[in-house]
Amino acid sequence: MTLQRIAADQPPLATIASIGDHVGQEVTLRGWLYNLRSSGKIAFPQLRDGTGIIQCVAFKKALGAEAFDVLTHLGQESSLVVVGEVRADDRAPGGYELKISRFHVIQDAKGYPIAPKEHGPAFLHDHRHLWVRSRRQQAILRLRHLSVQAIRHYFDSRGYVLFDSPIFTPNACEGTSTLFETEYFGRPAYLTQSGQLYQEAGAMAFGRTYCFGPTFRAEKSGTRRHLTEFWMVEPEIAFADLDDIMDIAEDFLVEIVAFVVDKGRRHLETLERDVSRLENIVKPFPRITYDEACAQLAGLGVPVEPEDDFGSPHETRLTQEYDRPVMVHRYPTAVKAFYMKEDPANPARVLGVDVLAPEGYGEIIGGGAREDDLDVLIRKIAEHRLPQEYFEWFLDLRRYGTVPHGGFGMGLERFVAWICGIPHIRETIPFPRTIDRLTP
Amino acid sequence: MTLQRIAADQPPLATIASIGDHVGQEVTLRGWLYNLRSSGKIAFPQLRDGTGIIQCVAFKKALGAEAFDVLTHLGQESSLVVVGEVRADDRAPGGYELKISRFHVIQDAKGYPIAPKEHGPAFLHDHRHLWVRSRRQQAILRLRHLSVQAIRHYFDSRGYVLFDSPIFTPNACEGTSTLFETEYFGRPAYLTQSGQLYQEAGAMAFGRTYCFGPTFRAEKSGTRRHLTEFWMVEPEIAFADLDDIMDIAEDFLVEIVAFVVDKGRRHLETLERDVSRLENIVKPFPRITYDEACAQLAGLGVPVEPEDDFGSPHETRLTQEYDRPVMVHRYPTAVKAFYMKEDPANPARVLGVDVLAPEGYGEIIGGGAREDDLDVLIRKIAEHRLPQEYFEWFLDLRRYGTVPHGGFGMGLERFVAWICGIPHIRETIPFPRTIDRLTP
Repeated sequence: MTLQRIAADQPPLATIASIGDHVGQEVTLRGWLYNLRSSGKIAFPQLRDGTGIIQCVAFKKALGAEAFDVLTHLGQESSLVVVGEVRADDRAPGGYELKISRFHVIQDAKGYPIAPKEHGPAFLHDHRHLWVRSRRQQAILRLRHLSVQAIRHYFDSRGYVLFDSPIFTPNACEGTSTLFETEYFGRPAYLTQSGQLYQEAGAMAFGRTYCFGPTFRAEKSGTRRHLTEFWMVEPEIAFADLDDIMDIAEDFLVEIVAFVVDKGRRHLETLERDVSRLENIVKPFPRITYDEACAQLAGLGVPVEPEDDFGSPHETRLTQEYDRPVMVHRYPTAVKAFYMKEDPANPARVLGVDVLAPEGYGEIIGGGAREDDLDVLIRKIAEHRLPQEYFEWFLDLRRYGTVPHGGFGMGLERFVAWICGIPHIRETIPFPRTIDRLTP
Repeated sequence: MTLQRIAADQPPLATIASIGDHVGQEVTLRGWLYNLRSSGKIAFPQLRDGTGIIQCVAFKKALGAEAFDVLTHLGQESSLVVVGEVRADDRAPGGYELKISRFHVIQDAKGYPIAPKEHGPAFLHDHRHLWVRSRRQQAILRLRHLSVQAIRHYFDSRGYVLFDSPIFTPNACEGTSTLFETEYFGRPAYLTQSGQLYQEAGAMAFGRTYCFGPTFRAEKSGTRRHLTEFWMVEPEIAFADLDDIMDIAEDFLVEIVAFVVDKGRRHLETLERDVSRLENIVKPFPRITYDEACAQLAGLGVPVEPEDDFGSPHETRLTQEYDRPVMVHRYPTAVKAFYMKEDPANPARVLGVDVLAPEGYGEIIGGGAREDDLDVLIRKIAEHRLPQEYFEWFLDLRRYGTVPHGGFGMGLERFVAWICGIPHIRETIPFPRTIDRLTP
């Protein structure tokens, strides 16, 4: 790697994240200029290397006038290799400082578009490929990564088998209004909105499975809670009823929130997130029926239309009453999907549950028990005016060894937005896609 | 869970995978009938519960004539709850046997389409939602899951940041012939063929990133090595040259193969895989140039057209000469993508590498150093007759802090097919999509 080499006696490479291991030593760092302050004799360049940001100090006398002049005129995001001594310094952000003895400029970058000043969201999203270099966006995306690790670890460590659902699906079962369509060798194919039906095949094969991949909705409303392309995790469990699904969803959320808080504390601090709100996420979560929630909402002055689904205002208001996620179960049969199992105690209600995140974040999980009776499922398909032939493979799961089962789906970006305490989910994914954004 | 309850004094639930912890105890198992042999007085039902398969034994005298008759007439894949005593028995497959004392039938399934006889591949793929219950398909899909775990662990434990590339992309940069197109609110969008360009933005922000998601190619040839929808992992590393990329690809493959062999040995045995071939995958891998490989292939009687890319026959023949993956580097510039960095020693060659798996499996990894010079990259875009305006965001990565960098992509299904030692990659994904298959 001759290009990054300053000299034959170059000190060992280090990263900013582990700079504390090198106090008192000379090291080599490679990265980009994040910021720079200087007076005539001393300069404080901030270097970022992707693992963190460190304040450096450079003295004109030590570097020589020419090199000092080069350094202090570098543009933001210039790429460089720096050699210097690591010093512990409580006054420095992060607690360490690098005293530069030599440096090598790879590129002096001029005119970096994202100056350390306020930009509008459209400008920043137009420059998303550069915006991801900022401290705040890095914190959000690292919390996304930690969330993914926590989610996969939860299922991997409990015997769930990863069973990727397909993206291409053959039928527009529930109408094409929110589906993306593509031509598939002369016939139409649609991009998946949910992997659930395929997970049911998985659960009957492996007992418990999950998928975790991108899903697609041609959402025509550009709200702060919708993306056209988002990642969803969907576990499915054989031999489970609604209570089991609520137990699992609760246990899952408690564990993954604790994991992300534990491993991501410094990123949450970067975002100035009130971590105590997340440390509050412990069992048990309140479990209330839809009918109880409606009565509560009426009392709060936000009534729900009889037998109607909740809207965003209802979810927001209801969750403001709780300091942890609330589980609303037994929704009206009329507003829910055909595969939801009816409540034997009241066929006007289904054994489904939505988990609403606190602080006004609203639904992050939806799931429940699936209809496992072949004849009832055939009737429900007819009642929903769906073509039975599209579902023959799905009905096979009830013909050959049906068992009670259920599962849920959680949208990754909604979860991350809640964890980060940010209002809009579009910052929780590297390259957001919305009704008015397909670039960069 | 009343439905699964046999009686108030039901013994504790167990799974077949951990049945060895319960020798001498009565347990409850829930699952499906995999197979059944019986004489007039004794029956040997095989039960599967998703975690494994166990041989049970049932005596007519102990169960009673009526219950024994029910049990011995159950159809394949009937769902049931079984109570019995666990016994260690070296003669039983798996080493344990369950002596049934009671059972409860959830559903007696009749006419399960996949009988224990030979079926053709089209029939099996038409019944993929049921076929995944078979021992062999379960072994393959569990090895897929282990592979995913190994891959993610490799990058997560080395400071790479997960940086999901988008699926929807705005431009058909390299022609539309193998792209799937969709209408995106009045304009065209294309499904990603590779997340690499976006990973380059990630590497400049985080130092090293990876993405791991579905990618799409409208492959018009229905070969055993192509799917239209497949999963690809793509790491990208700042401050890296071709030798670094080859080092990382080698280290990566050695670690993930060892992980899968270690954790998946019993699944490999189910597939009758020659595990010694995989235990052979150690450093160093042979590294040969394209020109050296061409000379070798000419000697083997499979000449390559001058300056042409390798075809499947070349890869197959070449890899038969080696007992571990072979790295072929420095391909002709003319056959490779515009973003590949030219070899300073010979502009007719690029600093790219393909890693070819042994035993005739061929290419599983492609990657190399990326062109990091703005002016050269602009020239290459023009030479490839690509519209520069589509790449302005990508060129920004060279305008603002460019550094030497590179990465690679590995197709998950090709890797899993090699690990499993199976000829066709369509069995390595739960629901394969090919030119002639979009269902179930």
